[in-house]
Amino acid sequence: MTTLRPKAAPSVAYSITVRILAPAGGAAVSQLTRTVEAAGGAITALDVSDSGHEQVQIDVTIGASSTEHAAEVVEALAQIPGVKVGRVSDRTFLLHLGGKLETAPRHQIRNRDDLSMIYTPGVARVCLAIAENPEDARRLTIKRNSVAVVTDGTAVLGLGDIGPLAAMPVMEGKAVLFKRFADIDAWPLCLDTTDVDEIVAVVKAVAPGFAGINLEDISAPRCFEIEARLREALDIPVFHDDQHGTAIVVLAALYNALRVVEKELSQVRIVMSGAGAAGTAILKVLLAAGARHVVVADIAGVVHRDRAGLNDSLRWVAEHTNPEGLTGTLKQALAGADVFVGVSAPGVIDADDVATMAERSVVFALANPTPEIDPAEASVHAEVVATGRSDFPNQINNVLAFPGVFRGLLDARSHDISMGLLIAAARALAGVVADDQLNASYITPSVFHPDVHDRVAAAVREAAGGSAELPEVAADTQL
Amino acid sequence: MTTLRPKAAPSVAYSITVRILAPAGGAAVSQLTRTVEAAGGAITALDVSDSGHEQVQIDVTIGASSTEHAAEVVEALAQIPGVKVGRVSDRTFLLHLGGKLETAPRHQIRNRDDLSMIYTPGVARVCLAIAENPEDARRLTIKRNSVAVVTDGTAVLGLGDIGPLAAMPVMEGKAVLFKRFADIDAWPLCLDTTDVDEIVAVVKAVAPGFAGINLEDISAPRCFEIEARLREALDIPVFHDDQHGTAIVVLAALYNALRVVEKELSQVRIVMSGAGAAGTAILKVLLAAGARHVVVADIAGVVHRDRAGLNDSLRWVAEHTNPEGLTGTLKQALAGADVFVGVSAPGVIDADDVATMAERSVVFALANPTPEIDPAEASVHAEVVATGRSDFPNQINNVLAFPGVFRGLLDARSHDISMGLLIAAARALAGVVADDQLNASYITPSVFHPDVHDRVAAAVREAAGGSAELPEVAADTQL
Repeated sequence: MTTLRPKAAPSVAYSITVRILAPAGGAAVSQLTRTVEAAGGAITALDVSDSGHEQVQIDVTIGASSTEHAAEVVEALAQIPGVKVGRVSDRTFLLHLGGKLETAPRHQIRNRDDLSMIYTPGVARVCLAIAENPEDARRLTIKRNSVAVVTDGTAVLGLGDIGPLAAMPVMEGKAVLFKRFADIDAWPLCLDTTDVDEIVAVVKAVAPGFAGINLEDISAPRCFEIEARLREALDIPVFHDDQHGTAIVVLAALYNALRVVEKELSQVRIVMSGAGAAGTAILKVLLAAGARHVVVADIAGVVHRDRAGLNDSLRWVAEHTNPEGLTGTLKQALAGADVFVGVSAPGVIDADDVATMAERSVVFALANPTPEIDPAEASVHAEVVATGRSDFPNQINNVLAFPGVFRGLLDARSHDISMGLLIAAARALAGVVADDQLNASYITPSVFHPDVHDRVAAAVREAAGGSAELPEVAADTQL
Repeated sequence: MTTLRPKAAPSVAYSITVRILAPAGGAAVSQLTRTVEAAGGAITALDVSDSGHEQVQIDVTIGASSTEHAAEVVEALAQIPGVKVGRVSDRTFLLHLGGKLETAPRHQIRNRDDLSMIYTPGVARVCLAIAENPEDARRLTIKRNSVAVVTDGTAVLGLGDIGPLAAMPVMEGKAVLFKRFADIDAWPLCLDTTDVDEIVAVVKAVAPGFAGINLEDISAPRCFEIEARLREALDIPVFHDDQHGTAIVVLAALYNALRVVEKELSQVRIVMSGAGAAGTAILKVLLAAGARHVVVADIAGVVHRDRAGLNDSLRWVAEHTNPEGLTGTLKQALAGADVFVGVSAPGVIDADDVATMAERSVVFALANPTPEIDPAEASVHAEVVATGRSDFPNQINNVLAFPGVFRGLLDARSHDISMGLLIAAARALAGVVADDQLNASYITPSVFHPDVHDRVAAAVREAAGGSAELPEVAADTQL
């Protein structure tokens, strides 16, 4: 993996807590901070957790820039005369210990009366009501509000095919975010199969208990077929976050970037790098939203109609983009372009390439964890720069979209994820950034902004044809 | 469905709340209680929820004995002069509105720092740790503590094949009980397929994210094959509660019943009615626990070696029971027997049959919701009577077993559910009833008894070869 910057800034994602034993009253304690700073770490907390006449025990929490860097900092601490380094704990691992999600009964079960209503014999009447009227499952069970987060672990983050077990922390995290940002009850299903037919069969089989399916981190092109077949088969929404979530957030960010540079989507020349799952989805939503001058390049250069060996997906791209019939390389295509959108690989363009772009250019370098161009370099010539990274401004983060999108779909009881719906979600998301807040460093709102998820949900409900109000859950049930 | 008793007692499972509007100060209010009582209902609460000069609004909560009975009570209230009946709500349905289960993040996500440890980019390191050492999934994800409650909805309670959607309230209820009684995070999977191969494939596919599989309410004989194939395929416990849970609780109850009547399991003559999934499992555990004189009857009468048309399962029964080669009917077999265990159908025996049993006899009439014999009738001649009903003493209730069994299996990280383990669980459960508490009306402890689930779990941990202590979840992780 190429590291474009010599030394990343210390980050909480690589934060450790080091237990230090030092002589009481000596010089050692005063050297701790200096030593950590000299080693490039950042102390974020320092607690004396035990103290005696002879010795003090100090827990120092330190942000490092990588696992290796954290080890270097610990090594430096161990060199301080008189200091003993005890247990080193990793804050990120601590948060994952035992899992990040649990279940919670919505009612107390205090006695036999409660039990006989929540379980047998009372539950039998509820079962019969649903057998008689299956739609009641959305009223009387968790189907109302539950989403399955489904993966086969073949394309997890930037890590690739690490399998279903190793994918669990991401899917659990996703489920936690569903609850945190949209009050949706999601459960991870990490599948021990990569066979398309089998994945489709499994999701169809488990569908009765869920109100929606979030496909996640399934490698292309298998993800396209799985999604298409499930959409055909199921009466609940099937959302592929890597495609649709990304497309929504990119379009929203682009709307706001163009507000900053005062250009029109229908007029700008857009060059995209990458034609995988995310790239194709972004392209489609850009075209549907009115972009007219888009050129796509992949590892073999610019996609055009006469290029040899186009597969079905690339042929579609060739037929719907590049109206001027450009050929050549990505770098050549970039000359004079207004917008670059990269969903490809680290370092495919450099500052000189950005310099060839039009005045007031926009660069979205979304390859993760290492972007197509270092954002600091891109900023020399581009006016607006965005990445997928959390440690730069303008993060293009799917968490901005998927909670609200599902909230809206579930509330509207809709399973139709149309292009219009994605665009409506993007418009709502972009609109969270008010005119007086907008600037080149603030084109995407914070995921903690109180309006983000509500506004996306409202837009999706409306686009899905659902009521703008939450559907009524009657407080009483007639006999 | 045969109703053996002319009128069941009012029960909270059929509890309603009726909103009454009555003239203030008139005679109507004083007639409410008398009217409900005359109609056979039981008032459990009466709240004046609004009051004016002219009129009072009263919410009356009433236990009825059936849905029809509840309607009769409402009708009777409407006949009181001056009274208007408003909304009638069903307390059981109210508890199910919106589902009974939800998810809960185990950590707060307050800011970007939290997000970057729980989700990207921090989560990537946790994924890589598991990719390197898959066993770490039990330490760093919810796999540690999660159970899938799996059904295809083909044999739900006594309701039969009502399908996966209508099965949801039961499976959700089960998941709630897992949390309430054993702090296990369970999620229902109600499958939209009844094909054995497909069910096996689905459960195998979802297994990576779970520490155990609880099969539930899948019709026989398909349940046997599904369970056997999954046990062969998976490295997590596969427990079929209808079989193994029932067998544990029946054996525990029998241990205590025999303590009451002062007989030995190896000596008593046991007659069983029913050779389905539950019956076969009970039979096997009784034999393994040392019962030597067991006779099984099904709808065609006593099972013996020379009976024509025995299938594989019944042949096994014939070869392992009925050493004296009895033939004839269930009723004939019952003469002189010490114990009757029914897991079959309503009303297959009567008080005269029980009268033919040995002195100090034991009758377990477990057909649900209507037992093989009315327990009041059985009690005329039997010393100990138990049923599956919650409104009689001595309820044989699977909730006594499955939470502790899974807690023990998960703690021991064992997937081997042996006969010895089932017996150990039964012994532990029986032992919760102390000598000075034991009597003919108290052979099974309350599910709310604080020791039940802990003791079952401890016995299972020991039988599974696990440590008697909870497995260590290290508080810290070395870099």
